[in-house]
Amino acid sequence: MRRSSRRRAKNNAQTPVEIPAYFRRTAPVYDILSEDKIARIEAAAEDILSNTGVAVRHLPSLELLREAGLEIDGEQVRFPRGFCRKLIQDNAPSEFIQHARNPAKSVRIGGDSLVLAPVYGPPFVAAEDIERRYGTLEDFHNFVKLAYMSPEMHHSGGTICEPTDIPVSKRHLDMIYAHMRYSDKPFMGAVTAGERATDTMEMCDILFGKDFVDSHCVTMGLINTNSPLVLDETMLDAAHVYAARGQATAITPFMIAGASSPVTVAGSVALSLAETLAGMAIVQLVKPGAPVIFGYMMLGMSMRTGSPIRFDETWKSLLIAGQVARRLGVPFRCGGSSSSSKILDAQAGWEGALYMMFSMLAGVNFMIHATGTLESGLVANFDKFVLDCDALGAAARMMTEVTVTDDDLALDAVDTVGPGGNFLDSAHTMARYKTVFYEPNVSNNDSFEQWTAAGAENAAQRANKHMRQLLADYQAPTLDASVDEALQAYIQKRKAELPDSFA
Amino acid sequence: MRRSSRRRAKNNAQTPVEIPAYFRRTAPVYDILSEDKIARIEAAAEDILSNTGVAVRHLPSLELLREAGLEIDGEQVRFPRGFCRKLIQDNAPSEFIQHARNPAKSVRIGGDSLVLAPVYGPPFVAAEDIERRYGTLEDFHNFVKLAYMSPEMHHSGGTICEPTDIPVSKRHLDMIYAHMRYSDKPFMGAVTAGERATDTMEMCDILFGKDFVDSHCVTMGLINTNSPLVLDETMLDAAHVYAARGQATAITPFMIAGASSPVTVAGSVALSLAETLAGMAIVQLVKPGAPVIFGYMMLGMSMRTGSPIRFDETWKSLLIAGQVARRLGVPFRCGGSSSSSKILDAQAGWEGALYMMFSMLAGVNFMIHATGTLESGLVANFDKFVLDCDALGAAARMMTEVTVTDDDLALDAVDTVGPGGNFLDSAHTMARYKTVFYEPNVSNNDSFEQWTAAGAENAAQRANKHMRQLLADYQAPTLDASVDEALQAYIQKRKAELPDSFA
Repeated sequence: MRRSSRRRAKNNAQTPVEIPAYFRRTAPVYDILSEDKIARIEAAAEDILSNTGVAVRHLPSLELLREAGLEIDGEQVRFPRGFCRKLIQDNAPSEFIQHARNPAKSVRIGGDSLVLAPVYGPPFVAAEDIERRYGTLEDFHNFVKLAYMSPEMHHSGGTICEPTDIPVSKRHLDMIYAHMRYSDKPFMGAVTAGERATDTMEMCDILFGKDFVDSHCVTMGLINTNSPLVLDETMLDAAHVYAARGQATAITPFMIAGASSPVTVAGSVALSLAETLAGMAIVQLVKPGAPVIFGYMMLGMSMRTGSPIRFDETWKSLLIAGQVARRLGVPFRCGGSSSSSKILDAQAGWEGALYMMFSMLAGVNFMIHATGTLESGLVANFDKFVLDCDALGAAARMMTEVTVTDDDLALDAVDTVGPGGNFLDSAHTMARYKTVFYEPNVSNNDSFEQWTAAGAENAAQRANKHMRQLLADYQAPTLDASVDEALQAYIQKRKAELPDSFA
Repeated sequence: MRRSSRRRAKNNAQTPVEIPAYFRRTAPVYDILSEDKIARIEAAAEDILSNTGVAVRHLPSLELLREAGLEIDGEQVRFPRGFCRKLIQDNAPSEFIQHARNPAKSVRIGGDSLVLAPVYGPPFVAAEDIERRYGTLEDFHNFVKLAYMSPEMHHSGGTICEPTDIPVSKRHLDMIYAHMRYSDKPFMGAVTAGERATDTMEMCDILFGKDFVDSHCVTMGLINTNSPLVLDETMLDAAHVYAARGQATAITPFMIAGASSPVTVAGSVALSLAETLAGMAIVQLVKPGAPVIFGYMMLGMSMRTGSPIRFDETWKSLLIAGQVARRLGVPFRCGGSSSSSKILDAQAGWEGALYMMFSMLAGVNFMIHATGTLESGLVANFDKFVLDCDALGAAARMMTEVTVTDDDLALDAVDTVGPGGNFLDSAHTMARYKTVFYEPNVSNNDSFEQWTAAGAENAAQRANKHMRQLLADYQAPTLDASVDEALQAYIQKRKAELPDSFA
């Protein structure tokens, strides 16, 4: 009773003006490596770029690189030392704004900003009341709605889950439309084919107006490299589409240390830096000044099962990658609340929280998988979506400055209360208690007796109720009817043109 | 099958020679405050000590303070600015060794060392196969055995749970005996009455020999202040007993911000510093050079339920307290894997892991509640005991230096593997993969299909099986029969002298 009324009060408070569109970090990052060690990693990346080189499997990119004076051997490109770094530092913005259709929800990416986005890419969905199964467009809609309802989420994300009931060839249209229609937060575009990126841009032109899009970043493509050292045609096709229109790309290796990257942290960061430098440099050749994000993703590997894991060496590598990204001077993407657990249990809790927290301590600017990820990305879990928001809320507040004013030190209050006294009704407490403590939605701090009387629910069960309440309370943001019609007409036209393909 | 054989292999490896007795931190701490802000907090603590003063409810302590030249007003003691700090810095060791009866298990406390100890003080116990109930001596024995079996635990702790089936007046004897008999790791002594501390010392004299005890630290008392600003008779009685014999005391406030301390982080740390400075100074007056530990414990308060919570402001305060302790130059105690959850669910997972991790990042030297704590300390949970060991193992490894040698950078391996290659069978991987990745015991990284086929157990269920296996595999360390007889004779004598009291 108490909880549900509190929830409602919280939901009513979710008006755009009251909620910051993104988080600003004021606490220091946790730098674990000395500058000279970071410089060694940077030098190693230049060694890789200039000696080993990168396979660029994309003719337009090879053409641009050739025009830039590079020597190319088939698909193998060797970048002279410092070439990529200079191109990026001379052209790419250190931070940029990704505009939302609701201007109050536009986010700044880079510098001391932190933008949180949902799980990305799982084929499966699950919840307390949904047995693990393939995701559908309805699931996708619900995730967009949850991200819209959650103040901790600054971004609507991209492929929150795969809507597998829609042909692969067409589902990008439905996903982009859902982000545009059911949310007013910024979103990511399709990257699974160049023409799907083009569809994304066409729809952005309808939503934002072509002139606005030509001069503002309104979407972003998540461009994965194929580690080690391959930039493939599909991803570069999409990157070209976004970059050519001045839209953002997040260039991100997917490394499993000991498989697709060296088994060591230093080796993996060096390899990843080589790959992202190459990718970001190509983007700058497509359009100098197009926003790029330095993405980082390295998992460990279980020697027992071969599965990806994220413990100490992964956490450390996040911190080091953050240092590398700041020295390069571009926005940094990493992390998430991911876990290899199959369900929302204690393993999911501790593994996800630590991976997420070290991403924050690494100074992440843009975090995909911030909520809802299980099975290392195979499952989008509705309950975990809202439970992760609890941890994210506390973690974001952790990354704010501690003030030490006379007011904070409370010497008068201490003297007034005195030995053996109580601060509960102190004026110092009364003036601050309503805002000083973070209160999660799903965590339960009741006594055992109260908790038992209320049904002895575990965190997953409570999260499920909270999630269902959010969806029940959902109200769509307004969208100009003519824009909506134009979007639907575009989708209808494209769906008629495109073949039905599920592969 | 595979898992249980792996467990056995791990257990067989638990011989004293192979396992370091304690952990050495080589990664940097995470300092969130500038030195000038820390200095302001230190100055505020001196303001509190000199203006407000501390209530010292213990005549022998008041007598020592009077002899030291302090002006005393009833029980109220005002300490001149810098008096306590100088006394502590002139006398207390910056680090010390707590000796175990097995010399290979002695631990260093202070500096860059990290010593992990179990849950402390809960009246209740629980597990998947134990419905929450009052603890018994048998439970206590089992926890001592688990701590003995767990390589992540460096210390046997103290009152791991209350053996409520034994009279309060006598149970300390059984607890101390259990630590001495069923483990060979270091342990904590009784503090609930001066005479119980004396019993602890008598038993230590039997176990270690009086001469050894006179010149070595073999036990430790956890001395709580009564925040705000009260040092009570019971705790100071016990502190005097331990200090007089050169044994360690961990002086620790128990602060709930907004109730027993100011609602602000800076105010709580300042108050706590005042209290611990006073307590440690008294210990140095009892016996200059007796080891003291700066203890820190501040919880937030739920505005919904009034219950203690530990989120961002608590995490920040740990980091600041660590900075304060290092500048003072004494060992630092804080943290644990505590949560206010009632069961071992996702809430327990994320809340416990973040509280623990920030303790590590704060540079904690001695961590009680590192394993097994639920309901903010009301429950010792057997399953959480082993699950927490997973997180502790990963977290401790996190706090080690990252090396950046040519070997780590793996340029040769990258060049050999080349674009699109695989590091799985690279010589660089083969030489390192067995040790580079941390592998938890309870976490499951199997595929969904494998996990389902194996029974679809959640983390709590798997932890329970692992815990039961550890207890089944337990073999007591040898103890000289004459020492054992002498200990039992002492206990028998004292039990005959003491009244049966359950209050």
